[in-house]
Amino acid sequence: MKTALNSVLHFPNRYCPRTPEFYRPPMASSRDLLAPLDTFERRHTGSSDADVAAMLQVVNHSSVDALVDIAVPANIRLKRPLRLPAAASETSALAELRAIASRNKIFRSFIGMGYYDTATPGVIQRNILENPGWYTAYTPYQAEISQGRLEALLNFQTVVTDLTGLQIANASMLDEGTAAAEAMMLAHRVKLGDSHDSSTFFVSDKCHPQTIDIVRTRAKPLNVTVIVGDHRTHDFSTPVFGVLVQYPDTTGSIHDFSTFFAKAHTSGALCVVATDLLALTLLRAPGEFGADVAVGSSQRFGVPMGFGGPHAGFLATKDEFKRQMPGRLVGVSKDVHGNPAMRLALGTREQHIRRDKATSNICTAQVLLAVMASMYAVYHGPEGLKRIAQRTRLLTRLLADGINSTGATVNVEPVFDTITVSGIDAAKIIAAATAAKFNLRPVDASTVGLSLDETTSTEQLQILLGLFGVDRVDLNALSDALAPDYAAPHTRTSSYLTASVFNKFHTEHEMLRYIRRLEAKDLSLVHSMISLGSCTMKLNATSEMFPVTWPEFGQLHPFAPADQTKGYAKLFAQLDKWLSEITGFATVSLQPNAGSQGEYAGLLVIRAYHESRGEGHRNICLIPTSAHGTNPASAAMCNFKVVPVACDASGNIDVADLKAKATEHAANLAALMVTYPSTHGVFETSIRAICKTIHAHGGQVYMDGANMNAQVGLTAPGFIGADVCHLNLHKTFCIPHGGGGPGMGPIGVAKHLVPFLPSHSVVPLNHDAGGHHMGAVSAAPWGSASILVISWMYIRMMGPDGVTRATKVAILNANYIAKRLENYFPVLYQGAGGLVAHECILEFRNWKKHGIEVEDVAKRLMDYGYHAPTMSFPVPGTLMIEPTESETKTELDRFCDALISIHGEISAVAAGTSDKLNNPLKHAPHTAAIVCGTEWPHPYSRETAAFPDSHTRASKFWPAVGRVDNVYGDRNLVCSCLGMEAFTPTTPV
Amino acid sequence: MKTALNSVLHFPNRYCPRTPEFYRPPMASSRDLLAPLDTFERRHTGSSDADVAAMLQVVNHSSVDALVDIAVPANIRLKRPLRLPAAASETSALAELRAIASRNKIFRSFIGMGYYDTATPGVIQRNILENPGWYTAYTPYQAEISQGRLEALLNFQTVVTDLTGLQIANASMLDEGTAAAEAMMLAHRVKLGDSHDSSTFFVSDKCHPQTIDIVRTRAKPLNVTVIVGDHRTHDFSTPVFGVLVQYPDTTGSIHDFSTFFAKAHTSGALCVVATDLLALTLLRAPGEFGADVAVGSSQRFGVPMGFGGPHAGFLATKDEFKRQMPGRLVGVSKDVHGNPAMRLALGTREQHIRRDKATSNICTAQVLLAVMASMYAVYHGPEGLKRIAQRTRLLTRLLADGINSTGATVNVEPVFDTITVSGIDAAKIIAAATAAKFNLRPVDASTVGLSLDETTSTEQLQILLGLFGVDRVDLNALSDALAPDYAAPHTRTSSYLTASVFNKFHTEHEMLRYIRRLEAKDLSLVHSMISLGSCTMKLNATSEMFPVTWPEFGQLHPFAPADQTKGYAKLFAQLDKWLSEITGFATVSLQPNAGSQGEYAGLLVIRAYHESRGEGHRNICLIPTSAHGTNPASAAMCNFKVVPVACDASGNIDVADLKAKATEHAANLAALMVTYPSTHGVFETSIRAICKTIHAHGGQVYMDGANMNAQVGLTAPGFIGADVCHLNLHKTFCIPHGGGGPGMGPIGVAKHLVPFLPSHSVVPLNHDAGGHHMGAVSAAPWGSASILVISWMYIRMMGPDGVTRATKVAILNANYIAKRLENYFPVLYQGAGGLVAHECILEFRNWKKHGIEVEDVAKRLMDYGYHAPTMSFPVPGTLMIEPTESETKTELDRFCDALISIHGEISAVAAGTSDKLNNPLKHAPHTAAIVCGTEWPHPYSRETAAFPDSHTRASKFWPAVGRVDNVYGDRNLVCSCLGMEAFTPTTPV
Repeated sequence: MKTALNSVLHFPNRYCPRTPEFYRPPMASSRDLLAPLDTFERRHTGSSDADVAAMLQVVNHSSVDALVDIAVPANIRLKRPLRLPAAASETSALAELRAIASRNKIFRSFIGMGYYDTATPGVIQRNILENPGWYTAYTPYQAEISQGRLEALLNFQTVVTDLTGLQIANASMLDEGTAAAEAMMLAHRVKLGDSHDSSTFFVSDKCHPQTIDIVRTRAKPLNVTVIVGDHRTHDFSTPVFGVLVQYPDTTGSIHDFSTFFAKAHTSGALCVVATDLLALTLLRAPGEFGADVAVGSSQRFGVPMGFGGPHAGFLATKDEFKRQMPGRLVGVSKDVHGNPAMRLALGTREQHIRRDKATSNICTAQVLLAVMASMYAVYHGPEGLKRIAQRTRLLTRLLADGINSTGATVNVEPVFDTITVSGIDAAKIIAAATAAKFNLRPVDASTVGLSLDETTSTEQLQILLGLFGVDRVDLNALSDALAPDYAAPHTRTSSYLTASVFNKFHTEHEMLRYIRRLEAKDLSLVHSMISLGSCTMKLNATSEMFPVTWPEFGQLHPFAPADQTKGYAKLFAQLDKWLSEITGFATVSLQPNAGSQGEYAGLLVIRAYHESRGEGHRNICLIPTSAHGTNPASAAMCNFKVVPVACDASGNIDVADLKAKATEHAANLAALMVTYPSTHGVFETSIRAICKTIHAHGGQVYMDGANMNAQVGLTAPGFIGADVCHLNLHKTFCIPHGGGGPGMGPIGVAKHLVPFLPSHSVVPLNHDAGGHHMGAVSAAPWGSASILVISWMYIRMMGPDGVTRATKVAILNANYIAKRLENYFPVLYQGAGGLVAHECILEFRNWKKHGIEVEDVAKRLMDYGYHAPTMSFPVPGTLMIEPTESETKTELDRFCDALISIHGEISAVAAGTSDKLNNPLKHAPHTAAIVCGTEWPHPYSRETAAFPDSHTRASKFWPAVGRVDNVYGDRNLVCSCLGMEAFTPTTPV
Repeated sequence: MKTALNSVLHFPNRYCPRTPEFYRPPMASSRDLLAPLDTFERRHTGSSDADVAAMLQVVNHSSVDALVDIAVPANIRLKRPLRLPAAASETSALAELRAIASRNKIFRSFIGMGYYDTATPGVIQRNILENPGWYTAYTPYQAEISQGRLEALLNFQTVVTDLTGLQIANASMLDEGTAAAEAMMLAHRVKLGDSHDSSTFFVSDKCHPQTIDIVRTRAKPLNVTVIVGDHRTHDFSTPVFGVLVQYPDTTGSIHDFSTFFAKAHTSGALCVVATDLLALTLLRAPGEFGADVAVGSSQRFGVPMGFGGPHAGFLATKDEFKRQMPGRLVGVSKDVHGNPAMRLALGTREQHIRRDKATSNICTAQVLLAVMASMYAVYHGPEGLKRIAQRTRLLTRLLADGINSTGATVNVEPVFDTITVSGIDAAKIIAAATAAKFNLRPVDASTVGLSLDETTSTEQLQILLGLFGVDRVDLNALSDALAPDYAAPHTRTSSYLTASVFNKFHTEHEMLRYIRRLEAKDLSLVHSMISLGSCTMKLNATSEMFPVTWPEFGQLHPFAPADQTKGYAKLFAQLDKWLSEITGFATVSLQPNAGSQGEYAGLLVIRAYHESRGEGHRNICLIPTSAHGTNPASAAMCNFKVVPVACDASGNIDVADLKAKATEHAANLAALMVTYPSTHGVFETSIRAICKTIHAHGGQVYMDGANMNAQVGLTAPGFIGADVCHLNLHKTFCIPHGGGGPGMGPIGVAKHLVPFLPSHSVVPLNHDAGGHHMGAVSAAPWGSASILVISWMYIRMMGPDGVTRATKVAILNANYIAKRLENYFPVLYQGAGGLVAHECILEFRNWKKHGIEVEDVAKRLMDYGYHAPTMSFPVPGTLMIEPTESETKTELDRFCDALISIHGEISAVAAGTSDKLNNPLKHAPHTAAIVCGTEWPHPYSRETAAFPDSHTRASKFWPAVGRVDNVYGDRNLVCSCLGMEAFTPTTPV
């Protein structure tokens, strides 16, 4: 067996000192020592050779390859190794990326257009953005162990509602552009519900061009007509269901929209404002002049520009539209002890329940960035934010006045941070600016734009003035003539951020402790494995994360001139090549900034392809019933009609049904959406036949990349026969989940689809030469560019063998868990040889008759220090466990032991030796306050509650609250800090 | 009052949005907005203007200035503001330092001499070195809330004992040079105890020059003669009490010392080996060939060179010498519940108890760096370390063989990482190396040295060979001829790092979780105020810490050529200027790398001064009885005779007694050591007179800088009349405590003492032109250079007004606490107007009669989430509280409320309403395991035990173990991991 194992898992520099038998391994040859020793794979992939050998014994296979050969159908196995560069050591990969970074030039950006330089407070950078305690957490579905980031997100929502003057805001959108598009869709839903007969949407031509672009992309498949025009002359003679304006607008002007909005409302339209949170500290809130929805970006609240992202967009609206709101919403509820507890609210709007009837396909958010932005507001407080805004405005007015004095035309007051200068020789001024390492916004031959921000210095202001021929001025004297606040009607009179959280943590010590107190409430990968089926939680290695905060990646504006961004260009080109090789496709678009966005973009590519062939009528999208809810939600956004395909008893696609449906809809068949391996955790053997069937009937195959981590190096979507797939870089390629975002969802496409890939209205991209492209899906040309370094590092350090072995070990680990647990909890679906793929579904429904729900198990796992695996997806009443390759056998065993121990607890209930209601499962999770309470009304011991195994005795993670009452929270929706503060706990927390 | 307050505390950019009255402050003038808003002072100094006003009401003073004018004697107040550059914003200070950093050139170092490049594992850098949870912790005196770093330090000790083959090692020394000097002193103590009549110490001339230098400095005042010679020819005809050799030696040769050591032992000498931990993974352990003591540096275990430091030195010895060992020692004991618990052991050797009879003046260590080095060993494991060593050796031999082939002379086998090449044109080769950005060790006109390390690449090896005229060689082929292990007698046959901790955390996830589990056991500034009297725990701001891990500061060898280190030179020059201005002295030496080192160096300067005037006989050192124990310990190291000076009833120096002693010892008076403000927390009014008295009798005044944070901007040692003082940069100037080090202890001196400042044997320093210098006290010319950036940033961001206001607010805060608590616990010493300085001593002895000790209060504070203030120093049975300026009124109040609540608990015991023994004080601290236990044998509630106030209910820090049994541990001394693993807990932890 040893030989076979070595032949499969020969890690050249992988010495395994963990077990006695390897303590003095036979000496390798001296030349082996010449290679660098800081190899990455052995740090990333969990188990040593000895562990692998032990696991193979349990799963009863002679080698990992033997196991993989059975689990993965032969007809889809790649015939050659991946053509990727050989693995680089951690040090050398960092050095290589450092060289790439040095090709980016950091110029001072005055481009504006929704992206501004900002001073990230050090305490936030170090303790959130660079802290795995924050960035490795998962989406806060398990509320009891996520109270820290839920509180930060509640703060974020409060910042947005307070500043916009609207009643409810969600816990972030992907960016400003998509938020605007979602607002349009919200208006569409509301007004269609009102039987409004218009399908036209008005967009001010003074919105950012990328925003207009995304709105157009989103409108097209829904048959919504977009009118782009001047709001001052738009007369509503053509009825519209909604309007979108920008405040301040992209040129820097600030309009009084009250009359326009009144007219819009009279005509039956909803009013959407794209706005700027910093400006709103001085400007009348949109909710005060009639806005129904406000959208924007919180980037300038301390989040680096990052060449386009990630940042948190926002969307706020009136209370009456809350159920039409897309995205995630944090709400306050109470726990079983009556104490306030937060959790994601109104989940009934979301795609995993409503599928194609969901408000949007959005199943991710920008949590980490929303947390940062909220902390920035907490740190500065209302007065601090106002000072920043006042200063920015003051400098902008000084600039405007100075330039005005030269005879150039500057847009008139009021302004905030942006001015547009015309009547000048733009090329000459831009050239002079470039020489000073300043970037201005080029508008046309005689016009430039300039946007200032909190980092602008008075020296920079003087240089800017100098570009326009203004001699150095006495800024002090000029300032005194300028009042810091706006005049009516623009000036803000309402207060904001009055909740105590924004008014007490203004020193670094207080801020540090607040951040750490919240962190301590959240379970993340720094504590234990998070084995979420379909949501890989791999190692997010430090070497992958370091470059994220290098200034050469962080401080670039997404629209900076190409000759300043050559480092990024090289990074994108390499990543494109590597991901294309891995997916078996011609090329990859790096624009979609979330998996859901990737799905949507992939379907739009298919749509555009059909249209280009005169087959725009094709609108049927086949989706297996086992699919992620996002699939039908994405299809709906493309106006595809979803036709479900049945699954057979083994959980596989019912090929006969698929053929029947394909035949039935042949004339209109647009696409099949298929996840591979299936969401049931099985490599279906019929996948090639399925793809052929779809193609034979004129359709295209969209492969959901959620389970791509089970394919890498073994097979590939393009090789199998798919036409397009998205990739979850935040899963398969190690971008951390960030507590619920950011993510990246690039799409790979076969050659015939390349011309249809996303474009961008400001930055020309390579693909769209033919003009057939589907438009833009993200505000920035390459989505959340700055986190692409993470995936680059991962692939570069793992190399072709490493990424392939990772896939194999992930499959081994899943099978090991399945094997260890199958005698306790039946494994629901298995493929060839009784094997699963990279995840396994455990059956818990059989305990229901004894009153034990799978949720009880999920909550009880918290007492053991674990985050529950994916619950009730794809099958209600089950847990889907995906361990990934990054966990050691030790950790897998500890997890299995916990579930086996829980099995004992369930069995005791079933046997009647444990009370049906008063048992550790039903009362889980147990908080410290409860276990330490004087009262202990339980027949089981306190130790059983809190310290059920040796690991918890050595290192205990305490859930912050008891089981949360979701229903109560949805019935009494509270989504802001003041609401939280008003909540009186009934017992001490 | 408002006016007065504003006049005192007018923070130009300090808007105070924290309290309602300031929520809409009167508008500042627009020009105020022109300055940058990311000012630092308001982030560092805790309280807002409103808080200050509220505190002033409590202390009943009209303004902070009014209070300070009373507390600080008028005759020592500075007449003008400090001449420091005006405060820079956080962003601009970082930019300025970045520009300074860019003047450092990062060349590849092959210099060796005890400093090697190393690959710091990312997971260690990010989660320890860059993590305030680790770097802001204090020295682990309060063991119950320090188990995390105590465990890491136990690992460190185990690494050292295992690799050196000796029985006991301490938890780090300041550097290799001082460790060698301490080893000499250890041998001296042991042999004098044996009535050995020699006062001569032999040092091999193949030790690093800086080591020899420090040994000489240390030997001189003790009248120890140092013979530097060749161990192969030394015949012991002159008796010596000890020998010091290096293994491998500074030229790279490896000697068999067994015969030499046998001879030494026969002659009655102790044998000390300076050695290298990495080499010892392949080489026979010193303990196996007769070494009594082994010393060295653990720098290359993942700690950046940092232009000299900080790194952790080590010292290991035989069990029989454990009570003679200097420094801190972690030992395993048990807690009150019988579970294993670690704490600092054998404190009876230390200066705070033994004063001038202590083993050394060392009261600090390099904990953070020792923790890093230990984690490096944990991450690599024994086999990983061995591979690194084998690779380093292989490359070195390939280099030696290649150069040998050119006809140059290379030192003969066996070698490890270093070779010395002679018979070449050194200047020419060094010039070529410089062109390749390589630094070699210059030895003489025909000799260079080369040291390789784990980061050396094969490409670099080829370039190195090329420098000597060797064409590119086939390294693979050449390697195969070389065996990876040494031949006898050099080869290592004994095992090491067999404890489980070194054999299971080899993936990044496992390592991350281990680090985080330990961190969770330690209370640090991320949790709450640590108000340690005499050990200021200020904010360690992120902006101050960022530059520490910039490569331009981290990757420089301390002996790199001066034209590559111009950035550091500028940093030193500026810091020298600023610190000289702050202390009122002519210049500052940045060499002493700990406060204790600074004390020692300061006294040596005084000694050298007297000698230069032909008054070398002056050897009387007056020290007030209230002094830190380090003072007499330092004096003893200088062979000064300590004469105590009495204190009066108010805790002040008894001036009459001082005059009497000065007069009595006038002929031999060397110095007075005085702390100011006094360790009693009072600004003594007689300080000027005291200085005059000393000078009048021919003595010099050494001012202990421990309380310098109460002087900055208000007065200054030089202004008061002192001649020399040390500064605790790790306290007053914001270098974090690192869990017990690193620190920096530069000394400032008056003009007449400048020629006597520390020198360096490798790098010429400015001061020592006259040749009168005292020698070197640290291995590196500027001590722990890389952390000087922290103090630079602090001063640069605070500016002259900021550092002065910090002092004032610190005094206000101390008086506020004194006032709030005086009705509960009497304040022991007060100065003018009933005011204290920056700290206050609370009396607890009156509760002793009710069985309550101050230790009970200290332990009970842990249940409230607080680290105890300084206990029983300077007065037994008291707590000395120093809140610093960095804490907000909110935090001060929370702490006072905790002590008031504890007062209630004590009173209940005194009143008999609470049991004398079974009460929350006596059983404190309460662990989660105990409070959650089925058994609860206490009359008070579990909630009282664990959640005594609202803060703990909202955010609980759990002590990891119950009260530790110190006596048991010292009686059963266990100082290694295996000992810990063998410990069987009697109850579940």
